[in-house]
Amino acid sequence: MRAAETIKWKRDRQELSLDQIRSFVDGYTEGSIPDYQMSALLMAIFLNGMTDKEAVHLTQVMLDSGASVSFSNNLVTVDKHSTGGVGDKASLILAPLAAACGVAIPMMSGRGLGHTGGTLDKLESIPGFQTQMSLDAFKKQVEDIGLCFIGQTKDICPADKKIYALRDVTGTVESLPLICASILSKKIAEGAKNLVLDVKMGSGAFMKTLENARALAKGLISIGSGKGLNVKAFITNMNQPLGTYIGNALEVKECLSILQQKDLDEDFCLKDFSDTQELSVKIAAQMVSMAKGLSFEHAEQEVISALTSGKAYEKFYQVCEAQGGDLDKLPHSSLLTTITASRTGYLHQIQTENVGLAAIALGAGRRVISDIIEPTAGLRLHKKIGDKVTSGEPLFSIYGKSSSSADGASSLLDSCYQISDHIPVHEPLIIEEI
Amino acid sequence: MRAAETIKWKRDRQELSLDQIRSFVDGYTEGSIPDYQMSALLMAIFLNGMTDKEAVHLTQVMLDSGASVSFSNNLVTVDKHSTGGVGDKASLILAPLAAACGVAIPMMSGRGLGHTGGTLDKLESIPGFQTQMSLDAFKKQVEDIGLCFIGQTKDICPADKKIYALRDVTGTVESLPLICASILSKKIAEGAKNLVLDVKMGSGAFMKTLENARALAKGLISIGSGKGLNVKAFITNMNQPLGTYIGNALEVKECLSILQQKDLDEDFCLKDFSDTQELSVKIAAQMVSMAKGLSFEHAEQEVISALTSGKAYEKFYQVCEAQGGDLDKLPHSSLLTTITASRTGYLHQIQTENVGLAAIALGAGRRVISDIIEPTAGLRLHKKIGDKVTSGEPLFSIYGKSSSSADGASSLLDSCYQISDHIPVHEPLIIEEI
Repeated sequence: MRAAETIKWKRDRQELSLDQIRSFVDGYTEGSIPDYQMSALLMAIFLNGMTDKEAVHLTQVMLDSGASVSFSNNLVTVDKHSTGGVGDKASLILAPLAAACGVAIPMMSGRGLGHTGGTLDKLESIPGFQTQMSLDAFKKQVEDIGLCFIGQTKDICPADKKIYALRDVTGTVESLPLICASILSKKIAEGAKNLVLDVKMGSGAFMKTLENARALAKGLISIGSGKGLNVKAFITNMNQPLGTYIGNALEVKECLSILQQKDLDEDFCLKDFSDTQELSVKIAAQMVSMAKGLSFEHAEQEVISALTSGKAYEKFYQVCEAQGGDLDKLPHSSLLTTITASRTGYLHQIQTENVGLAAIALGAGRRVISDIIEPTAGLRLHKKIGDKVTSGEPLFSIYGKSSSSADGASSLLDSCYQISDHIPVHEPLIIEEI
Repeated sequence: MRAAETIKWKRDRQELSLDQIRSFVDGYTEGSIPDYQMSALLMAIFLNGMTDKEAVHLTQVMLDSGASVSFSNNLVTVDKHSTGGVGDKASLILAPLAAACGVAIPMMSGRGLGHTGGTLDKLESIPGFQTQMSLDAFKKQVEDIGLCFIGQTKDICPADKKIYALRDVTGTVESLPLICASILSKKIAEGAKNLVLDVKMGSGAFMKTLENARALAKGLISIGSGKGLNVKAFITNMNQPLGTYIGNALEVKECLSILQQKDLDEDFCLKDFSDTQELSVKIAAQMVSMAKGLSFEHAEQEVISALTSGKAYEKFYQVCEAQGGDLDKLPHSSLLTTITASRTGYLHQIQTENVGLAAIALGAGRRVISDIIEPTAGLRLHKKIGDKVTSGEPLFSIYGKSSSSADGASSLLDSCYQISDHIPVHEPLIIEEI
């Protein structure tokens, strides 16, 4: 009966107490409160919202549902969270960049979701790379070399895991307080003291409007600060894919070109990856600034010097070795076909979500949970928004193993761009800092 | 996946189509849609409401989930539905009244819910009275003698039964469209063509305000007319129990006094039951007016004549015989104790819900579903609001078998009334006709 009373409380727009949230979430996690009561509460939260106080309580309760990593006090930890985009490989660059500046990064990442890619999937395209390990091993690696990439373990926030699976099938995913509590509980559990958010906005992001992106950023900052987590956010442009390549091994190779600051071959030229580099440097600089208490400008100089000196690449190499990954064996992607421009003009618009879905159709992501990813599958974006395009010039290259999957991807890509006679208004990569 | 899309549709305040509602409700009834998806949809309906069109669709789908009774076209059927009150025994009088006027009444009733009593429980205090029977037997009795009292069978609206049980534990009971669809689907399934609603309002009703009572009445009228059911409503006063007795056998005896139009003994004097009689006559008159196409005044004359001529009592006796009930064996209630007035003045206010709970504490209703009702348990209300009260005069008599339960009832009754020096403003029994 108490569970039904808690549902009614939220339904009637009363503020839930820590005790109410704890007994409901704990009861659900251990199985004494059934799915159908949790889903009713989730829908009431979705429609009536939560105060910051309630969301802070929920974060705490989800955190308390499992294990936490705690680092010694003299280790300043910082992590980064992206809300998900297409071609967003920044974590693979910014994490070694910040670690090379002496900051400790306990990075717990996810897999591809919907049309977006996931850091774990990208790293696992490096043969041998392990992202599943014990929390003790994770902690030791962060303490020893300053960076470890890990997947969510069953020990961390089991309440969040169970609730997330239920949200997915009950239409309650896109709720600001539920998203914030889910992200923050895991970040706090992994031992982060500082967090830089990359809130993506645009045709390839979950947040389509600046208003929604700002609301999420502000929610995370405010709820995070309620839990003693120092949070800063960038709202960044996802109206086109980040960088040039989309697909796991292809993206790793783009990252290697940036980290090594050189062209790797005629298809992997550093100059094509300037936006990926710019975003990675900005986020890494914010991470270093927060963790070391430096001005942003000072931190940015440290980050650039870690990049140009090769120290960031060394750090990434070291992390790959520690986690069993062999960069020399990164698989080669075979070109299947190329989509060319149907007319001359300027590339005006990209339906970025469809680009992500095309990559998934090729095998770069999962349509259902049991799908196996093809690490070499993916896309190259030959033109960025604002570029001059001549009829017949390549717009997208399609890579992978299965020619049949290329057809599905081609038809998505054929209709996903717009060429116009006028140069489109320039959009900044970093839209806002919060 | 389709179920989650339907949830999102309602969540985002889009109107659900008949197909969406049918596939969701049918899927739930047959078990392919789980409880947790239905409860998310129910909460979205609770908070976002339903259009009349959606509620009409829901009524149809719940109706189609089970069997329906259909009477021959020349049989004009009418039923009555009360939203539930304390001491509300009107159905036992108005049904034989209307049947004695030649109207057919297929009456499917419920049991006590919360602090309120239920028609089935009252009838079953008559030894031998059967309310469980096949739909065929129900139909035959209505056709043969014009009235049958039956409980909800498993054949009728199984979708409603399953959804109602889920609403009860997910905080989604008090939703206007869900209440309307639940009531109307059952009334249509039992074969009623006309329906008179008694929407109770006040301290002993589920609806505490006129606004809520009106909204429910209007919802039922509008959704009912969408399904070809002719509905009229009275909003009636439930700021005090109806009549004098509360408790199953005691209420039946009050009804027998009215139906026989005589005092049965010194404790059962017809003059004490004037409000029960007034309400029963008004509702029966409305039923007869609707079913026979007469003016209300003309129908009321027919009803009064059926009462005074003894025809209504004959009809009730005939129904009891047909359903196995032996009125001569109605059990006698033993007086346990009396609550007296603590001061002199006018009875100003009664917390009627607590009076209902006191009766339940005595065994007149169930606290949990497995409780067994004591038919002789109950209360007598010696004073009605506005009556002069002298210190020491009896206010309530407590009847039953268990002296220990009398203590719990006494303490509820001790604090459930207010005596003041001034005559309270008179409140009408029938507040509004819609």
